[in-house]
Amino acid sequence: MVTIIEETSGLPEISREDIIIDGIFGSGLSRPVEGIAAKMIQHINNSGAKIVSIDIPSGLYGEDNRSNITGNIIKADLTFTFQFPFLSFFFADNGQYTGKWEVLDIGLHREAIINTESPYFCLDAEEIRKILKPRKKFSHKGTYGHALLIAGSYGMMGAAVLSVKSCLRGGAGLVTAHIPKCGYGIVQTAAPEALISIDESDLSFSVVPDLSRYTATGAGPGLGCSPAAAKAMKYLLEKNKKPVVIDADGLTILSGNQEWYGLLPEESILTPHPGEFDRLAGSSGSMYERYLKQLALSKKHKVIIALKGAHTIITSPGGKVWFNTTGNPGMATGGSGDVLTGLIVSLLAQGYSPLESTIAGVYLHGIAGDLAKKDKGEESLIASDLIEYTGKAFLAVNNS
Amino acid sequence: MVTIIEETSGLPEISREDIIIDGIFGSGLSRPVEGIAAKMIQHINNSGAKIVSIDIPSGLYGEDNRSNITGNIIKADLTFTFQFPFLSFFFADNGQYTGKWEVLDIGLHREAIINTESPYFCLDAEEIRKILKPRKKFSHKGTYGHALLIAGSYGMMGAAVLSVKSCLRGGAGLVTAHIPKCGYGIVQTAAPEALISIDESDLSFSVVPDLSRYTATGAGPGLGCSPAAAKAMKYLLEKNKKPVVIDADGLTILSGNQEWYGLLPEESILTPHPGEFDRLAGSSGSMYERYLKQLALSKKHKVIIALKGAHTIITSPGGKVWFNTTGNPGMATGGSGDVLTGLIVSLLAQGYSPLESTIAGVYLHGIAGDLAKKDKGEESLIASDLIEYTGKAFLAVNNS
Amino acid sequence: MVTIIEETSGLPEISREDIIIDGIFGSGLSRPVEGIAAKMIQHINNSGAKIVSIDIPSGLYGEDNRSNITGNIIKADLTFTFQFPFLSFFFADNGQYTGKWEVLDIGLHREAIINTESPYFCLDAEEIRKILKPRKKFSHKGTYGHALLIAGSYGMMGAAVLSVKSCLRGGAGLVTAHIPKCGYGIVQTAAPEALISIDESDLSFSVVPDLSRYTATGAGPGLGCSPAAAKAMKYLLEKNKKPVVIDADGLTILSGNQEWYGLLPEESILTPHPGEFDRLAGSSGSMYERYLKQLALSKKHKVIIALKGAHTIITSPGGKVWFNTTGNPGMATGGSGDVLTGLIVSLLAQGYSPLESTIAGVYLHGIAGDLAKKDKGEESLIASDLIEYTGKAFLAVNNS
Amino acid sequence: MVTIIEETSGLPEISREDIIIDGIFGSGLSRPVEGIAAKMIQHINNSGAKIVSIDIPSGLYGEDNRSNITGNIIKADLTFTFQFPFLSFFFADNGQYTGKWEVLDIGLHREAIINTESPYFCLDAEEIRKILKPRKKFSHKGTYGHALLIAGSYGMMGAAVLSVKSCLRGGAGLVTAHIPKCGYGIVQTAAPEALISIDESDLSFSVVPDLSRYTATGAGPGLGCSPAAAKAMKYLLEKNKKPVVIDADGLTILSGNQEWYGLLPEESILTPHPGEFDRLAGSSGSMYERYLKQLALSKKHKVIIALKGAHTIITSPGGKVWFNTTGNPGMATGGSGDVLTGLIVSLLAQGYSPLESTIAGVYLHGIAGDLAKKDKGEESLIASDLIEYTGKAFLAVNNS
Repeated sequence: MVTIIEETSGLPEISREDIIIDGIFGSGLSRPVEGIAAKMIQHINNSGAKIVSIDIPSGLYGEDNRSNITGNIIKADLTFTFQFPFLSFFFADNGQYTGKWEVLDIGLHREAIINTESPYFCLDAEEIRKILKPRKKFSHKGTYGHALLIAGSYGMMGAAVLSVKSCLRGGAGLVTAHIPKCGYGIVQTAAPEALISIDESDLSFSVVPDLSRYTATGAGPGLGCSPAAAKAMKYLLEKNKKPVVIDADGLTILSGNQEWYGLLPEESILTPHPGEFDRLAGSSGSMYERYLKQLALSKKHKVIIALKGAHTIITSPGGKVWFNTTGNPGMATGGSGDVLTGLIVSLLAQGYSPLESTIAGVYLHGIAGDLAKKDKGEESLIASDLIEYTGKAFLAVNNS
Repeated sequence: MVTIIEETSGLPEISREDIIIDGIFGSGLSRPVEGIAAKMIQHINNSGAKIVSIDIPSGLYGEDNRSNITGNIIKADLTFTFQFPFLSFFFADNGQYTGKWEVLDIGLHREAIINTESPYFCLDAEEIRKILKPRKKFSHKGTYGHALLIAGSYGMMGAAVLSVKSCLRGGAGLVTAHIPKCGYGIVQTAAPEALISIDESDLSFSVVPDLSRYTATGAGPGLGCSPAAAKAMKYLLEKNKKPVVIDADGLTILSGNQEWYGLLPEESILTPHPGEFDRLAGSSGSMYERYLKQLALSKKHKVIIALKGAHTIITSPGGKVWFNTTGNPGMATGGSGDVLTGLIVSLLAQGYSPLESTIAGVYLHGIAGDLAKKDKGEESLIASDLIEYTGKAFLAVNNS
Repeated sequence: MVTIIEETSGLPEISREDIIIDGIFGSGLSRPVEGIAAKMIQHINNSGAKIVSIDIPSGLYGEDNRSNITGNIIKADLTFTFQFPFLSFFFADNGQYTGKWEVLDIGLHREAIINTESPYFCLDAEEIRKILKPRKKFSHKGTYGHALLIAGSYGMMGAAVLSVKSCLRGGAGLVTAHIPKCGYGIVQTAAPEALISIDESDLSFSVVPDLSRYTATGAGPGLGCSPAAAKAMKYLLEKNKKPVVIDADGLTILSGNQEWYGLLPEESILTPHPGEFDRLAGSSGSMYERYLKQLALSKKHKVIIALKGAHTIITSPGGKVWFNTTGNPGMATGGSGDVLTGLIVSLLAQGYSPLESTIAGVYLHGIAGDLAKKDKGEESLIASDLIEYTGKAFLAVNNS
Repeated sequence: MVTIIEETSGLPEISREDIIIDGIFGSGLSRPVEGIAAKMIQHINNSGAKIVSIDIPSGLYGEDNRSNITGNIIKADLTFTFQFPFLSFFFADNGQYTGKWEVLDIGLHREAIINTESPYFCLDAEEIRKILKPRKKFSHKGTYGHALLIAGSYGMMGAAVLSVKSCLRGGAGLVTAHIPKCGYGIVQTAAPEALISIDESDLSFSVVPDLSRYTATGAGPGLGCSPAAAKAMKYLLEKNKKPVVIDADGLTILSGNQEWYGLLPEESILTPHPGEFDRLAGSSGSMYERYLKQLALSKKHKVIIALKGAHTIITSPGGKVWFNTTGNPGMATGGSGDVLTGLIVSLLAQGYSPLESTIAGVYLHGIAGDLAKKDKGEESLIASDLIEYTGKAFLAVNNS
């Protein structure tokens, strides 16, 4: 039985086989649901029936739910929303309320979104296609820049391999890996197209190479957090004058030396996962709080932050926000982030702006994962698959 | 000529071109066939005709044939049985009687099976699909655990490579390989997604890493049986508090130190091939006897045992038995077991119970082999192929 | 609105949406456009309309545009030319005038081309198919020669891997890589079909191997420009008596020691990119000037030069010129040139003449890139892809 | 114009565009063509016309052409023969007379073949399918034996990689590579399924491992011919008691120590290419002479010899001869022989007889090449491709 519930006078009988269409409250709520309505919501949640919410699960706010009463929000299996998703839909802790959500195009611009203070955008193929510049006939490898990846340490050279191979597939004209001696044979065997800059240390990043040869630099994957690596990281930030990509252990080192933020050129790119972000910005009680911190951190230090997750969130120094819409949980696997770093550095090396590089890199990385999933299976997807499918991701975006 | 033989009065003329339908005796036998019936069976076996047994080859018991007279059992080319196979069909030494066997679904539950003392089950895709949990949208690599594989020694690093790569394809969020120094470049080159924990020894497992970082541990592939490895193995069992997977040389070490059984946490998983099992439990005069020993060993030490073979047999501490129905003799090739170990550890790391991990791992491993066989040929199938097809095995089960 | 402009009386209104068919001037010009015609050309260029030139963009000369007035040449989006492209179309600095160009076959031989002093040719599949000799049934690996590649140094062993693998795919019967000790494991792992000649040096080319075993030699990819490598390079040129292929760092060393030209056997092959060429011949103010220098250098030193670019230009000692028509800007990526070197050396080792080897190698390399692009995406194309698609390039040419 | 020439009265006008059907002489000749018939043959050969011979090119003998007058034999472009090819068709030096040849089945057994003193056979898929035993359901890796390959030396470890990988694909249950220390990382990275037995020497084979663990042994690929390797080779032959496969440098060592033949167990397998064979047996003036020497050597030393070529010739101690009919000139590439060695050793390890192993190995190796050629192109085919296509070769034979 399909029951549309729009009012809350009396608690109907609901069986596990029913489908409830939840139209009780829309998005205009500014205080928690209480009283009879709260009882109805609890009644529906406890019924075991399938729940489909229209617009927004009743009781959920469109943005900040920190002051909400979590027990009084519909827990939908499926939510159909109109034109644009609500901000709150992108946060993992609201996944229990929205269930799977889909956007129905009803031909309108939602006023609420246009007027919101922090404008946010969903990434789609069209936007990425506009960013990507077709290669020109008379271009040469110098046209596409020279990327430097500082990555790897004893026991973690795989991170260097993954980021370097991804960087090659991202289109940079030349890619150099700066690695400790212990990784020499590993990286040259795995990525013959890459040039190698060999550190003086057997085990770890310790000496900054001459940066003048490179059009973009990324540092972090597999670096480890040894004192030598931290010292070299500082020296790198002091010498470097261009927007730089910092990931993984590079971020962990940074989180222990927050005074180094001042050394980061404007529009540098940080790509933390939530754990790394919390080390940078302190822990948060909710995803929304973390999101606010991300926005604040981007503005304060004039950096771009890509907070990785099911919907990777990109924030700019100017206070803009992009939510990624590609990717799948098969990408929750070791090395996935190293691949993203390589891809963003590759785009940056080719002359895309830091913001373009981050946006396009995050989107393409997700498409690669979505394409790989079909062939490799979600469970079995590994980071190398993302590299293998990067070319098909470019083809998919260009042909979309 | 097709001849249905249900009675045994007189020995008919049979030529090599005939097809004999054997319906002489069913499954109710409790003593060996003798007298005129035995003569008829010998007559049929010696005729050179094709023999098709219905229900069960005449003379064969449904379970324990140790006291049977082996010369007085029909040697069928093909056996059609009803609803469920008999227990005896799963044992290699009865393959000469059943020939190829197929199950015909006649819509009944066989009472004999339901009432048997040791209930056994055949694995099928539906059961595995129920075990496997779909990945959740907002999950991250931490959701899928961190597997530790202790594997490899000088001359046998390939076993580490195979188990690590399989573990990655099994879906664990992170995989760490604990290996001796001699394997460093090999494993990092082959599996860039894996982290490496490097032993102090150049040649062999000798030091147990900090286990607290890992959600599941497997030990054994390619470890060798050096005194150093044995000593470290003991220390591992002493430190470890969670169900652990022991395979290959790990089992051989255990078989020489049976007092260590007490160190194994309940529901630890042992994955011997018959030779390794016999070292653990003593040799057996028949497959049925080995099966009884397996059951007893599982109960006594509260461990799960997967005895690898054409029908891998899984026994639980509670005395339940599962027979695998996937796989093919192309998988009888070096390294096949290392791949299985990696897969089971991977599932265990993700939070599946030890029993679920063993059952799903064994079944998926067999499906991977069946899919690989079609492309690679049964003779040419190698262990790496099983890894390559693990993703397709997941897809096949999820879409079955 | 489509407007055909053949005369220049008065400046018409043109909007951004219009399409202008430029038929103002053909190819007979011998002095720059000036006066009212120049105004019309500027007017059209500034209009923002799409411009299609017929025969040649008005104002552009067919060959040498060094004395032209660059502001008074039509900048077409698309140029349709007849029967043969003009020489000027092949130079990167004229790409802004021709836009994309296509040749329409009108069934005529253009007199201007036939009578020109420096006859030039466009490579096509038919010509390459004529060069390639089908393999004979009773041939053996000795029939296909033994190629020697002197390549690689510490940090640049990937160049050796790429050229060696490409040389194998090019069809040479045997391939030997002469490499420093640091590359031993790398090259043997990546290319098990290759034999290895190991230099005395850990880091660099330093000793010339016995050349008598080899039917063709190539030197340069990843060699570095160390004094040791330069000294060994000189010794190589002194010992070698057969046409040799020099690329990459080999060319850079040569450019610092131009007195060594005399050591090059006639019909040796140089494969510079524009930067390397300018080091050899000095910088040029235009592509046309570089082209003239290339012609002159080929004649003076009796060498074949393949100047790599969107249209790779091949010049012979006899003053002939070939323009390649295959390839795409996805090939503007590190290692692409190493692959070409390996392919040319491979063909030379098989007994093709130096000119045939260069022409076929350049053409096949481009076809490999065009085929790879379809599967891998232009942005993601890497040098290894070109090797992977070499076989398909041979198949495409042979079946064309 | 098509002209059938059966008589030789007068020399007709022939133009380059004609097609000549050569029916002048059949296979019964026992002395060279002379006089007017010889003039006719020369006239036809010089005409430039296409020549199609029926049965046999006129003037050619069916077997031994050493005493023939080579100028008086028709040089056909194409020869149609009946039921069975003549022996002479398999020898490279007669390829100029037969051109491409095809066998037409006319439903007869050629008396001449049946009565010949040295009976020879052409390999076909049916014969190989009869040799290959389907894998049994309850088999395990021990069923398929344990192969030992003694291969590789400093600079030639690729030969070890290729033979080991091929041996794995051939179906052996276990494969061990005995290699010098310098190859440890290379072989373990390339073939994780293989076990490694490490020689005491860094550079070369020097110590024979315990042979009792292995069901078959092969020695030779990439061994080099150092005194240490030769000494170890002798010791191997002294210790070994089972038919052994000797290839490549193993054969070269043997050719310098012919007194060691006595150490070879009966039915050992030698797999020389023509150059290696000539070192063993002295050079020959014709292919037929070499063939006679091969027959004699097989009989004298009771060994199986597979003389590799377009039609690999296999001779047995009993004086039988098999000509292979699979393969193509794309296989004339370095490492192709190492792959064959691995495959034969693999079959031998599985319990196939030495003759079965050689016949099936040679045939499957050729099928793998024919299948690989379609995808990879004949020119670009490399030895690794043969390994990759071994499984498809098994599938093709089993499904033929």
